[in-house]
Amino acid sequence: MTPTISINDSQRLQLSPLEIPSRLLLGPGPSNAHPTVLQAMNTSPVGHLDPAFLALMDEIQSLLRYVWQTENPLTIAVSGTGTAAMEATIANSVEPGDVVLIGVAGYFGNRLVDMAGRYGADVRTITKPWGQVFSLEELKTALETHRPAILALVHAETSTGARQPLEGVADLCREFGTLLLLDTVTSLGGVPIFLDAWGVDLAYSCSQKGLGCPPGASPFTMSPRAAEKLQKRRTKVANWYLDMSLLSKYWGSDRVYHHTAPINLYYALREALRLVAEEGLANCWQRHQKNVEYLWESLEDIGLSMHVEREYRLPTLTTVRIPDGVDGKAIARQLLNEHNIEIGGGLGELAGKVWRVGLMGFNSRKESVDQLIAALRQVLPQ
Amino acid sequence: MTPTISINDSQRLQLSPLEIPSRLLLGPGPSNAHPTVLQAMNTSPVGHLDPAFLALMDEIQSLLRYVWQTENPLTIAVSGTGTAAMEATIANSVEPGDVVLIGVAGYFGNRLVDMAGRYGADVRTITKPWGQVFSLEELKTALETHRPAILALVHAETSTGARQPLEGVADLCREFGTLLLLDTVTSLGGVPIFLDAWGVDLAYSCSQKGLGCPPGASPFTMSPRAAEKLQKRRTKVANWYLDMSLLSKYWGSDRVYHHTAPINLYYALREALRLVAEEGLANCWQRHQKNVEYLWESLEDIGLSMHVEREYRLPTLTTVRIPDGVDGKAIARQLLNEHNIEIGGGLGELAGKVWRVGLMGFNSRKESVDQLIAALRQVLPQ
Repeated sequence: MTPTISINDSQRLQLSPLEIPSRLLLGPGPSNAHPTVLQAMNTSPVGHLDPAFLALMDEIQSLLRYVWQTENPLTIAVSGTGTAAMEATIANSVEPGDVVLIGVAGYFGNRLVDMAGRYGADVRTITKPWGQVFSLEELKTALETHRPAILALVHAETSTGARQPLEGVADLCREFGTLLLLDTVTSLGGVPIFLDAWGVDLAYSCSQKGLGCPPGASPFTMSPRAAEKLQKRRTKVANWYLDMSLLSKYWGSDRVYHHTAPINLYYALREALRLVAEEGLANCWQRHQKNVEYLWESLEDIGLSMHVEREYRLPTLTTVRIPDGVDGKAIARQLLNEHNIEIGGGLGELAGKVWRVGLMGFNSRKESVDQLIAALRQVLPQ
Repeated sequence: MTPTISINDSQRLQLSPLEIPSRLLLGPGPSNAHPTVLQAMNTSPVGHLDPAFLALMDEIQSLLRYVWQTENPLTIAVSGTGTAAMEATIANSVEPGDVVLIGVAGYFGNRLVDMAGRYGADVRTITKPWGQVFSLEELKTALETHRPAILALVHAETSTGARQPLEGVADLCREFGTLLLLDTVTSLGGVPIFLDAWGVDLAYSCSQKGLGCPPGASPFTMSPRAAEKLQKRRTKVANWYLDMSLLSKYWGSDRVYHHTAPINLYYALREALRLVAEEGLANCWQRHQKNVEYLWESLEDIGLSMHVEREYRLPTLTTVRIPDGVDGKAIARQLLNEHNIEIGGGLGELAGKVWRVGLMGFNSRKESVDQLIAALRQVLPQ
């Protein structure tokens, strides 16, 4: 077993122990995790089939149903970040040739288009300028025109800060035999959500925003209607890692090994969900709303304005217009380097036009706003 | 924004703070993480585009090249567990219709077959009884017969404990214009590996075995030859999350946002790799070999025998024959419940016939062996 080839040391860096600056994360995510949640990460892993871990998986499933307000049996956390959970909804619901109608009013609508195409969907889109939302009438017309198998909408568009109203959408979908797929990445835990009452069939989210957990284990849920489509597939799910027909046997009572879960992230997610349940959803949503209104007032006090119409603004993420003549990137860089505060820049249609400010999970606190405003007063040109 | 639907509290569990038993993980993985690595998880996340994080990504890339002994520029960690990294090698290299030849001598060979089929490969297999390996002659004959675009082999079969020799395989592959894809999940960090000297084109691994890190961020590498095949694809990679043509722009100098990385897992992986580099690969491999030989002797001392021929046994994972008349599952359960030691059972052809004992990363220590043997003396029938 002695190697006969000599070892190449050219990439053998000599490093000091990890040193990471402490930031206040007020961008589009990740947000700072709650200290209790972070502490849970520092617990020695157990095996992915250990009875203690299986019990924890059950707790995660129940609490995810609570925060999403659903009774869907197939409600789990996917072993990847929010994008993996997004891909899980597409991979499991789309079969080649299915018409998938996607509402595109921002970056993540476009991502859904790209993904659905890779799974062989016949993709149709309706679009709106970034920062606006679709009316029920517009959705109805599009459903009539395209009669899709799936309608995919973004509840909280992370790139624009707009909240898509969902009331009435599912009734339309039922009329056309369409499944409703919803991106709740930037809404879960921070924005009122009622998946079952709204008739949503597939949804995904992330851990590092409204739930106040580090990124890496991502909520996924599927209604019995969507599960039926999965069972009736003519083809295997075109993604092994995210195949719910296999994953449901690991999360369900069979406990069939599928892959080694990111154990410590599940510890963290369980703690994050426990804290949300302790606070209570109504309180949690109200806290996000109260703090974001304080943010909007405070930003207006220093002469800034919001991009999205007030009625459709998210409590979790705000797009703030960059004033004429101000170098948005330079300001963000100064906030990071001089004040250890991260905010985000604009994407796509909004690149260079807005900053994105998140107040999510543990970071949705009055002190976060006060710190940001104090720093902005220093870095913005007077 | 006040919700007009009432909140359903039926899934709102009232939980106590997390309590997880402390286990010695001597199964097929995960292994216990090094305490320094675990501590790094408890560091507040920064943004995935923070300069401090981008610098850490570069460190991870260099150190992964070192542990794999490769100079491949495209060497990264995938944001998922080992199975996601496995799928990344298949998704990025296989185009529909490509002939993919897979060596199946265990569970993970079969998984490759299932995955490659989902990406449209024309899958061919060669097989061996579980616990054996392929000879160069057998591989040559199979390459001549199938002339595949890709040959996929498992370097360290986690289900059998056998080590597939690689010397000479790449020369054959070059003859037939075949890319060589290698599963190094249970070898990286614990078994001598020389990707470049062996001519391997695609490889994947995990964090929670030889590297002594929690699971969730998984090594992936691709040679320039494999990258050329990726660039020349006629079709998009049929997996958005794992598409290296997009991911390479985030890990490369462009730093184009792709998805939110599991930040804290990258902290841990960086620390795990730093510790391997500090110890040095040669020392690390020797430690694994010395401790596993001590394990084999100690197991023989209490009357147990190994399943794999000595020459091909892995230093990281040992399959131990369950003696006639012994209930293997009951013994494993007793070890867990009475001694807090996890070992694994057999899979597939070896179900009920072997236990799987891992000595990997931080757990490859004399004390791990002593603890296991002392416990086995108590639970095995005399």
